[in-house]
Amino acid sequence: MKEITIKGWINEVRSLGGIVFIEIIEGNSLKPITVVVKREENPQLVKVAKKIKLGSAVKIKGLEPEKIISRKGREVHATEIKVLAEPIEPPPLDPTGKTKALLDTIIQYRYFALRLPIQKAIFRIRAGLVEASRIFLSQKGLLEVHTPKICGAGAEGGATVFEIDYFGRRAFLSQSPQLYKQMLMCSLPGVYEITPYFRAEKFNTPRHLNESWGIDAEISFIESYEDVMSLLEDLIIHIFNYLKINYNDELSTLNINLNIPRKPFKRIPYSEVLEILRNEGINLKWGEDLDSEAERVLGEIMKEEGYEAYFITCYPWKAKPFYIMRKNEESESFDLDYKGLELASGGQREHRYHKLVENIKDKMLNPETFSFYLEAFKYGMPPHGGFGLGLDRLLMVIIGVKNIREVVLFPRDRQRLVP
Amino acid sequence: MKEITIKGWINEVRSLGGIVFIEIIEGNSLKPITVVVKREENPQLVKVAKKIKLGSAVKIKGLEPEKIISRKGREVHATEIKVLAEPIEPPPLDPTGKTKALLDTIIQYRYFALRLPIQKAIFRIRAGLVEASRIFLSQKGLLEVHTPKICGAGAEGGATVFEIDYFGRRAFLSQSPQLYKQMLMCSLPGVYEITPYFRAEKFNTPRHLNESWGIDAEISFIESYEDVMSLLEDLIIHIFNYLKINYNDELSTLNINLNIPRKPFKRIPYSEVLEILRNEGINLKWGEDLDSEAERVLGEIMKEEGYEAYFITCYPWKAKPFYIMRKNEESESFDLDYKGLELASGGQREHRYHKLVENIKDKMLNPETFSFYLEAFKYGMPPHGGFGLGLDRLLMVIIGVKNIREVVLFPRDRQRLVP
Repeated sequence: MKEITIKGWINEVRSLGGIVFIEIIEGNSLKPITVVVKREENPQLVKVAKKIKLGSAVKIKGLEPEKIISRKGREVHATEIKVLAEPIEPPPLDPTGKTKALLDTIIQYRYFALRLPIQKAIFRIRAGLVEASRIFLSQKGLLEVHTPKICGAGAEGGATVFEIDYFGRRAFLSQSPQLYKQMLMCSLPGVYEITPYFRAEKFNTPRHLNESWGIDAEISFIESYEDVMSLLEDLIIHIFNYLKINYNDELSTLNINLNIPRKPFKRIPYSEVLEILRNEGINLKWGEDLDSEAERVLGEIMKEEGYEAYFITCYPWKAKPFYIMRKNEESESFDLDYKGLELASGGQREHRYHKLVENIKDKMLNPETFSFYLEAFKYGMPPHGGFGLGLDRLLMVIIGVKNIREVVLFPRDRQRLVP
Repeated sequence: MKEITIKGWINEVRSLGGIVFIEIIEGNSLKPITVVVKREENPQLVKVAKKIKLGSAVKIKGLEPEKIISRKGREVHATEIKVLAEPIEPPPLDPTGKTKALLDTIIQYRYFALRLPIQKAIFRIRAGLVEASRIFLSQKGLLEVHTPKICGAGAEGGATVFEIDYFGRRAFLSQSPQLYKQMLMCSLPGVYEITPYFRAEKFNTPRHLNESWGIDAEISFIESYEDVMSLLEDLIIHIFNYLKINYNDELSTLNINLNIPRKPFKRIPYSEVLEILRNEGINLKWGEDLDSEAERVLGEIMKEEGYEAYFITCYPWKAKPFYIMRKNEESESFDLDYKGLELASGGQREHRYHKLVENIKDKMLNPETFSFYLEAFKYGMPPHGGFGLGLDRLLMVIIGVKNIREVVLFPRDRQRLVP
């Protein structure tokens, strides 16, 4: 037996004859520990144990067998129990997980729900995902940067930004680091940022939030947008492998067997996608963006063909933003879809100053609004490209959930501003 | 000789007899490469080389000796030169660094200034600093989290937040993850977040920005705020060591010899600080916060005594925010100063619901505004504490600069909203 100290929360107390069983969840462990208090060993402690309120924060000293025998997990014989904080209200949801809580309840009480192993597993995998991304992108020579979230100019469209009063001047919250990461291509081989995106669109779907997180990368001196797709493929595969190796317990807790996609991911030109969808009775006009139903149907067909992850390439220019490189009526761009959900988009950017100005005008925007950005294209801007990958969405497909609110601690949508 | 490809920007072209020397800066290297083109070897290429515009983005193929002989760095014999992008305006600052640029110019053209080795070194050390912090805090069992930047309630004071129109509701930008990281102590042993802080204060100093970055950590089940100071000390020492080992070239480029602080950092109670300052002719009333002049003078005295980093402890309760644990007229809190600059503050938090409500009232705030936060204290909130460490400021003292704008790519202050 070795002496140990447990710091955690009481999930359950059961009394059986002269023995009290306390189920306690320790901060970092995915499995509860059973603490045993026997009357014959310590009659005083049994009285303490019986009076403990569910949910209390406690510090327990005890003895644990050197080798764990029980299949049910760790079992500790208590020698000292100290209650550090007692709840003043009954728990908002069942911390043992036996009674399932609704998603709304979980979101409302996320700080409490994290006592559940499933919740803990989700947010540890989230941390693992960003960790894996940073390791990969840094190792590829991309510099991690911090670009401003408060911007004074350069909103890509008017209606979709949150406005701020900045000491009497109009400013807005950054929709993405797009323009800044491009500007940095004037001197660096590659940058990345893992950052919140702020979008004031009136979403009301399970796939959108008004504050979401993205993994944004940009690389210079590319030959074509194939270089960008290749980087993104490798990143996704690296993340999956990394999680499988380092987050095995968490994945098991969620009953997930990660299927690692193989390189190269399928590439389907947009025009072909339209044809495939037409055969399924979905008629899109050339130039239209795919709606979520079209994405879902395409996902099913791709899955039948053995592809979970696939790129839709050669998007119509008119469906893409001004900074994408135009190629007649098409563009040097792609979306990455995974099982019918759009995870990322990217492509080669227009690096030639005069063409870029033309592109901006073509989108009915005013080049003057973008002068701070255009300026960076005057001093030898090399060909470059990049992607924005939805961190929350990638986590959704890894965890296998349909609602983005499952993977964000304190989601922000049209209804939710607190907690 | 081995065949290599260089992708970079032209800093300088010099013609000497039949030889052209091209100085080129590659994306990731801190030293320029000299490309040599000889008329006797390749008369056609000499013509191309002579016509290259300064600042152009180029791809050069060439031959490099297996062993580098020259003290001046790498030298490559060009076999092919491809100009990928030509500047359409003269460079906004000297990319060789021979003519020093003003800080204002550097900030205006940061995306170009990053061709300078010194600039590259600063922002690579910045990336190294966040990398080191994450490695250390994760290894200590703290979970990396993402808390919301758009908040609906719980501003610590009224005047210092940026307001947002959130679909017709009033919201504001998060000043720090303080309240959220505390709420998570209801179920987790520790969390951290590296995140922007948004503060609408009308700063006009070299040490403040309206959008700055912080390293925020919180741990539960602490015995006292000594646990928090110990974690912070270890973090700082780890960062210094990590940079010294992994960012040696960057530190050399900046002529920095990092002095690693030793543990334990000096702890001086606030009352003693007042006395020390009184001896220097600075008279502060008990309860007043230290201004920057007081901090500077204290820093000099501490340095004389051999301490670069030191904690000021036992701050008056009235100088601290409501969430800090009160102890009569004092508080369980600290500031970390380094050479006269405040880097971090932290302490033990009030975890007892009723005391916390009292604290909020004592600060003339309305507990109802904080109901979403207070709610988390009803279900067995253990003793906890944490700190907020200014990332930009820590980088300032590491790099040895006096203006915070030196270490932020695109700073936001009262004047600057672009680029």
